Amino acid sequence: MGGDLDERDERDGGGGRPAGSGGKGERMIGIPRAVVERIVDVALAEDLGAGDVTGNLTVDAGRRARAAAVAKSELVVAGLEVFRAAFERLDGGIGVRLVAADSERASPGAVLAVVDGTARAVLAAERTALNFLQRLCGIATLTRRFVDAVPRGLATRILDTRKTTPGLRALERYAVRCGGGLNHRSDLGGGILIKDNHIAACGSVGEAVGRALRGAGPTQRVEVEVTTLEQLDQALAAGAQAVLLDNMTPERVAEAVRRAAGRVVIEVSGGVRLEDVPALARAGADFISAGALTHSAPAADISLEFET
Amino acid sequence: MGGDLDERDERDGGGGRPAGSGGKGERMIGIPRAVVERIVDVALAEDLGAGDVTGNLTVDAGRRARAAAVAKSELVVAGLEVFRAAFERLDGGIGVRLVAADSERASPGAVLAVVDGTARAVLAAERTALNFLQRLCGIATLTRRFVDAVPRGLATRILDTRKTTPGLRALERYAVRCGGGLNHRSDLGGGILIKDNHIAACGSVGEAVGRALRGAGPTQRVEVEVTTLEQLDQALAAGAQAVLLDNMTPERVAEAVRRAAGRVVIEVSGGVRLEDVPALARAGADFISAGALTHSAPAADISLEFET
Amino acid sequence: MGGDLDERDERDGGGGRPAGSGGKGERMIGIPRAVVERIVDVALAEDLGAGDVTGNLTVDAGRRARAAAVAKSELVVAGLEVFRAAFERLDGGIGVRLVAADSERASPGAVLAVVDGTARAVLAAERTALNFLQRLCGIATLTRRFVDAVPRGLATRILDTRKTTPGLRALERYAVRCGGGLNHRSDLGGGILIKDNHIAACGSVGEAVGRALRGAGPTQRVEVEVTTLEQLDQALAAGAQAVLLDNMTPERVAEAVRRAAGRVVIEVSGGVRLEDVPALARAGADFISAGALTHSAPAADISLEFET
Amino acid sequence: MGGDLDERDERDGGGGRPAGSGGKGERMIGIPRAVVERIVDVALAEDLGAGDVTGNLTVDAGRRARAAAVAKSELVVAGLEVFRAAFERLDGGIGVRLVAADSERASPGAVLAVVDGTARAVLAAERTALNFLQRLCGIATLTRRFVDAVPRGLATRILDTRKTTPGLRALERYAVRCGGGLNHRSDLGGGILIKDNHIAACGSVGEAVGRALRGAGPTQRVEVEVTTLEQLDQALAAGAQAVLLDNMTPERVAEAVRRAAGRVVIEVSGGVRLEDVPALARAGADFISAGALTHSAPAADISLEFET
Amino acid sequence: MGGDLDERDERDGGGGRPAGSGGKGERMIGIPRAVVERIVDVALAEDLGAGDVTGNLTVDAGRRARAAAVAKSELVVAGLEVFRAAFERLDGGIGVRLVAADSERASPGAVLAVVDGTARAVLAAERTALNFLQRLCGIATLTRRFVDAVPRGLATRILDTRKTTPGLRALERYAVRCGGGLNHRSDLGGGILIKDNHIAACGSVGEAVGRALRGAGPTQRVEVEVTTLEQLDQALAAGAQAVLLDNMTPERVAEAVRRAAGRVVIEVSGGVRLEDVPALARAGADFISAGALTHSAPAADISLEFET
Amino acid sequence: MGGDLDERDERDGGGGRPAGSGGKGERMIGIPRAVVERIVDVALAEDLGAGDVTGNLTVDAGRRARAAAVAKSELVVAGLEVFRAAFERLDGGIGVRLVAADSERASPGAVLAVVDGTARAVLAAERTALNFLQRLCGIATLTRRFVDAVPRGLATRILDTRKTTPGLRALERYAVRCGGGLNHRSDLGGGILIKDNHIAACGSVGEAVGRALRGAGPTQRVEVEVTTLEQLDQALAAGAQAVLLDNMTPERVAEAVRRAAGRVVIEVSGGVRLEDVPALARAGADFISAGALTHSAPAADISLEFET
Repeated sequence: MGGDLDERDERDGGGGRPAGSGGKGERMIGIPRAVVERIVDVALAEDLGAGDVTGNLTVDAGRRARAAAVAKSELVVAGLEVFRAAFERLDGGIGVRLVAADSERASPGAVLAVVDGTARAVLAAERTALNFLQRLCGIATLTRRFVDAVPRGLATRILDTRKTTPGLRALERYAVRCGGGLNHRSDLGGGILIKDNHIAACGSVGEAVGRALRGAGPTQRVEVEVTTLEQLDQALAAGAQAVLLDNMTPERVAEAVRRAAGRVVIEVSGGVRLEDVPALARAGADFISAGALTHSAPAADISLEFET
Repeated sequence: MGGDLDERDERDGGGGRPAGSGGKGERMIGIPRAVVERIVDVALAEDLGAGDVTGNLTVDAGRRARAAAVAKSELVVAGLEVFRAAFERLDGGIGVRLVAADSERASPGAVLAVVDGTARAVLAAERTALNFLQRLCGIATLTRRFVDAVPRGLATRILDTRKTTPGLRALERYAVRCGGGLNHRSDLGGGILIKDNHIAACGSVGEAVGRALRGAGPTQRVEVEVTTLEQLDQALAAGAQAVLLDNMTPERVAEAVRRAAGRVVIEVSGGVRLEDVPALARAGADFISAGALTHSAPAADISLEFET
Repeated sequence: MGGDLDERDERDGGGGRPAGSGGKGERMIGIPRAVVERIVDVALAEDLGAGDVTGNLTVDAGRRARAAAVAKSELVVAGLEVFRAAFERLDGGIGVRLVAADSERASPGAVLAVVDGTARAVLAAERTALNFLQRLCGIATLTRRFVDAVPRGLATRILDTRKTTPGLRALERYAVRCGGGLNHRSDLGGGILIKDNHIAACGSVGEAVGRALRGAGPTQRVEVEVTTLEQLDQALAAGAQAVLLDNMTPERVAEAVRRAAGRVVIEVSGGVRLEDVPALARAGADFISAGALTHSAPAADISLEFET
Repeated sequence: MGGDLDERDERDGGGGRPAGSGGKGERMIGIPRAVVERIVDVALAEDLGAGDVTGNLTVDAGRRARAAAVAKSELVVAGLEVFRAAFERLDGGIGVRLVAADSERASPGAVLAVVDGTARAVLAAERTALNFLQRLCGIATLTRRFVDAVPRGLATRILDTRKTTPGLRALERYAVRCGGGLNHRSDLGGGILIKDNHIAACGSVGEAVGRALRGAGPTQRVEVEVTTLEQLDQALAAGAQAVLLDNMTPERVAEAVRRAAGRVVIEVSGGVRLEDVPALARAGADFISAGALTHSAPAADISLEFET
Repeated sequence: MGGDLDERDERDGGGGRPAGSGGKGERMIGIPRAVVERIVDVALAEDLGAGDVTGNLTVDAGRRARAAAVAKSELVVAGLEVFRAAFERLDGGIGVRLVAADSERASPGAVLAVVDGTARAVLAAERTALNFLQRLCGIATLTRRFVDAVPRGLATRILDTRKTTPGLRALERYAVRCGGGLNHRSDLGGGILIKDNHIAACGSVGEAVGRALRGAGPTQRVEVEVTTLEQLDQALAAGAQAVLLDNMTPERVAEAVRRAAGRVVIEVSGGVRLEDVPALARAGADFISAGALTHSAPAADISLEFET
Repeated sequence: MGGDLDERDERDGGGGRPAGSGGKGERMIGIPRAVVERIVDVALAEDLGAGDVTGNLTVDAGRRARAAAVAKSELVVAGLEVFRAAFERLDGGIGVRLVAADSERASPGAVLAVVDGTARAVLAAERTALNFLQRLCGIATLTRRFVDAVPRGLATRILDTRKTTPGLRALERYAVRCGGGLNHRSDLGGGILIKDNHIAACGSVGEAVGRALRGAGPTQRVEVEVTTLEQLDQALAAGAQAVLLDNMTPERVAEAVRRAAGRVVIEVSGGVRLEDVPALARAGADFISAGALTHSAPAADISLEFET
């Protein structure tokens, strides 16, 4: 990947772009254009403030620049369209050619994208574009490590959680998918998951599960979080359709799987670290979810290098 | 700190609150109310989606709950007003009493705040409130460690950078201040900092510094990033008023300080790790800036515990 | 109308589009682009939520689709540009070719527009696009029936009211025009209409009309709502320039017209049903206004049919 | 219900309001305050335009008014908090006392709420407040009729669809709940429902269901729309967990229920009219969904009557 | 006016405020709260940027301040609620007591309002609050001078135009009313005014007036701009209901008034200066409109003086 | 400048536009596209209201128009891109060709830009486009006069202040630059300027300056406002790096310059009129700042003339 800055952008159109199209906004990452643009606009406004006084003073208005986004570490790519949008929303005259594609792996030195425009504009959008790309690649890279930690042959899937950065959930969930992970429910309206505090407020596992079953729509499965095997038994008895085993050892997970006997889907969660994944998967978890994918992923190391 | 949930909220008014006031929005963290509210509203909308279907199904509408935000690790507090806003913006009937105060240290088990309202509402805002608080406390905590790493007796200050989370810069800069750090320029309009790419686009250090000096306003100092001692000499000769030494060892920093001879302010930056701080400070840096404060701070461990 | 999906889009440019233009946003329905885009963006965000999980799972990213919006009942077309915008705002790579034009009548089976893009994107925007189109065609169709109910040779005009759907007034007023109706005042700032509660709060018809006449600008006519012939006489005496006869029978309207003797414009309103129109028009009303045009128009039946 | 305008507002606090509270925004209908306020603000801006020129000219600034929202037909109440918000967002000095409560039935003449403020402000917000209330009560009322049409003893639930008014989905779904209905998935991200066009784009029922099962999270059930009994058999064979029977007669629904034999949840949909509900419920449908609940509900008749 | 800073704020409630109310947002200037708040929030964000670094560094967080807005020149007051909102939107803990009232005249030294809060917050909002107040008082003051220039006994009214500051029209129109002026149509949707370019695009005065008459609603009067007496005759013949005489001398205005013979309302416009008003009024103009009221009003001189 | 309407738009691309580009949004004035578009959209919405009823009634939908923006007085051009955006944001089918360029001088009769589109659209956006252009040219023109008033050979620079129009600061600062002025700090976060009230709240000049120096970042110079020479001495003693001399005569400025002896940057401010500039510059001011540049600049006289 990477290579000659002059090669045509062949990846760019993908399925979503009519041949010969040169227009704007024709890329699709499953998120409406307006959503991406609004996030990018906020970030640009925040970083531009009253405008790039340094660039305006030191760089001639007409001077053009070309720069490449280069990976500085092993990473999984995610967020190139957001990177592109940061430049284009600042100045529609900047061109961004994608050399890599989201979900691909990149090695140090690989060129991910090439940016072309007036030097002032490229400099002004650089930090915003990189702030997005480094964060999203960081999440995809960490997710990939979790996914790869599932022993071959097991069907355990890696899930994200709602522990995302405020304002960036849509992008971070996309990055999780780029890393091979699966998305848990999108938000509180996107699925029924009875947690310990619901149970406390309702009275018992059985009562909570029963109420939820009566109110669930045709696309919803009632999942309940349990912290003990006793609660698991109550959940099974009440007819829960999925259980989240909170903070259990692989041994307890295995026992839970035995008791469940295929009647429910099993999710394991609670401070799961990368090194815990193999044993939890072997214990029979259908899903392992980890907040760390989004709240602790270190930013990927990527820099924007100007041609001289 | 922490302690009895029933004690009066004495910290809450501070100087900014008229005695006896019970109104909304009277807290002040140096950020306009509307800015905090907009960020919180976006986060709530993102996490609520179509509403908390689980809580609506399993918890009675009239049931009330009381819950405490409890530190689970050593941390420096930051963002309690944002935590509070997350609950109040969801439902004006929720009361949040702050037990700790921003900038304070908290130990595991310490209660930071107590939340009181209908159980449905508290459950619906819980994740959003914690996502903010854990992130901001994480940044304050890491900043504090950098600040404390400066050897006693030295005046070196710890600075943040523009490598903040898109959309959250105002809050993250505030968290850096809670941790004892200083804020670098707020955005591209908030100061003149000539970076390598400006120099490349302009032609030379001398030319860039000269142009900037001619265009600087009365509150601005012209800072220039240099990667070599030769560039430092050029910057000094051109009349730069501050220099950013990029990626230099403590030895080179010490040499740079010698050459500068008090004529310019010295900032050191470039992948600075916590363990690098003492030597860089001893080498004579006036400022050490680290992107890690905002882009790599691990989330602080805080949970919301419901009374039963 | 309708017919071959392959024919060129000849209606599309109209007067508002330079020949050969292939750009975005060049269509004009008398509403600023930004207004339409904002309404559409809100609707898309609302219907997309975290994204079309079904399409993402079951349809290949590169697969393209072509689909036609087909009338399933007799209707008057309105809102094709909004239909188009729903697709384009989701994904700029979707092409929408208009086969029909707003204000035209369409019969069951008629193709109104053809959509071309990636299957995922077309599926994701389908419901939003149809929700707009069905509602606006419904309003245009009902308005057309009211307009057609005015006996030939009479100049009575059909007016809408302020009983529009919150957030959609601009679009619904446009649909009324597509159906041949006229728009009443746009909002409370767009004209002077003294209603019963104004009269009560002011004291008398005469006093209210007098005050309004003194404050009316050069483009404003003072209209007053009257519920009795006595009030009509007071309004005429006070110099009102238009009267709204509220809930009167055709006989009373005719009597009111006699008393007005051409001195004022006569509007009839108040629960007017389609079958009431002929008699009210014959009674001499200049205008008949009906809230039902916007708050009770049944959605037109239109479906999006995919080519296979 | 209704009755003396002077009685205390006992319903108002419910569980969500601390005793003695006089503050703003403490009511809870499961939708964040900011969401309701944004919708109301848009509607007010749209109806106010440059301000109520008539009221400003004819009514003295200091004059106060009191008015009651009165039901003019049998209805189920929904949206009183939105009605209240319309007045309060225009002018924080208006007081709105709720006499009825959402989900209750009201008869003609029943007072639903009492409004108190300056006459100018009450007049200016009147139309906006009623536009919301009439629409939402209309939806609740129609939903109630569908719910009541399910024969006693059957567990069939009435569901809404995504055919809601653009911009008002959250409010309309709430109104459906007030009428005793259940909400289907909130949006495309809130559940997996494979429709005919997904099947066409994917290739077959079996392939689409299989892909969806592999990608479904722990809270999701895979539902698939089928139009024939053959497709039903394919869906059952592929492991679908719910099926939507599109446009089937009660007889075919009964046959489908037999074939499903309890293995899947059964939803019936497609142009369902009120009179179809009993037979479809008796045929064994778990759910009946109807777009008409939101796109065809006639506005309830409610007026704002001023005291004199 | 002015005087003791300690006196109670008696003007503040006016008719719009319930006795004893201490809540927010209960003031009414005929503009929805949300509109004022949005404009103020934008202005605060623009002036605060990343926050008041000077105040944060030099002023203790707990220190309180009290300051008075003092007129430094003769002026007519307008915009005190916006002034208040600027402080309250920054920090809900600031109290603003109005000493003067909009539409009143104030002399140099008069206290218009008193502000009380933390010193940091008062300093941070000061410039924004004054920027609004000085501009609006400037407009009201200039308008008052135009109004006072109409010779006693004549009914000529002073009108504003659409030449307002982008984003501030609602506020500026309000200031015109505070100065005794009348508002012309609010916007292009708020009235029919056929200008020279409409005539050119349509073909003739007669054709344009005829079309407009056929499309005018019951609250609309058709006004047409004429630049010659010949055009006036055409307008009269076509049935225009109001004419705008563009750039005519008082003599020509008088002749136009003669020809109109009371059949139409007469508005005079086009670069009208204060000194032109008496003669134009005497010539018989019903209305004189002047863009200068809003685009050339010098800012009123007002300062915020801190108590020491 | 000006001249033939048919000549190609050679200025338009400048450095920021790829040759042959016909796309949108590729112009760059140092302000993000989204910022300009948002301001323009607000202004258009405000002036359009419910749409241009006059144009819709009198002008045929398909009719095209061509019009030139023509200077009617001597002026310095500023804001042509905003002028352009007003048309394009209303209707993407309008073409705007720039004949002049920002920062150029124009004489009466000079054509600044040519607009081409449907007559309805051009008429609808005309007032908004001109409102922006006249204001910004007015500011640039006044700034130019201040700049030109500095005696030849002196390096005194003209600065703007924070006394800008709420909502338009970014555009007005740009206009100041077009007129040859320099921008002072962008906002309260963009620089440290200790004013009289900070000093009062802090206790003394020395204490305030000391605190600020300890908290200043590497790009910040500490400036302090002084009203007496005694305060100047205190500021110098405390180590201030710049001083703002408030309301001093040229003689006192000269004395201040002597005392400062090159140790600090000198800014002069406080009601500076154009005629004051030469003497203040000769007295040795480094900077002269004037609020009048933005709050008192008379609108430039520019009209849009339609070809016939």
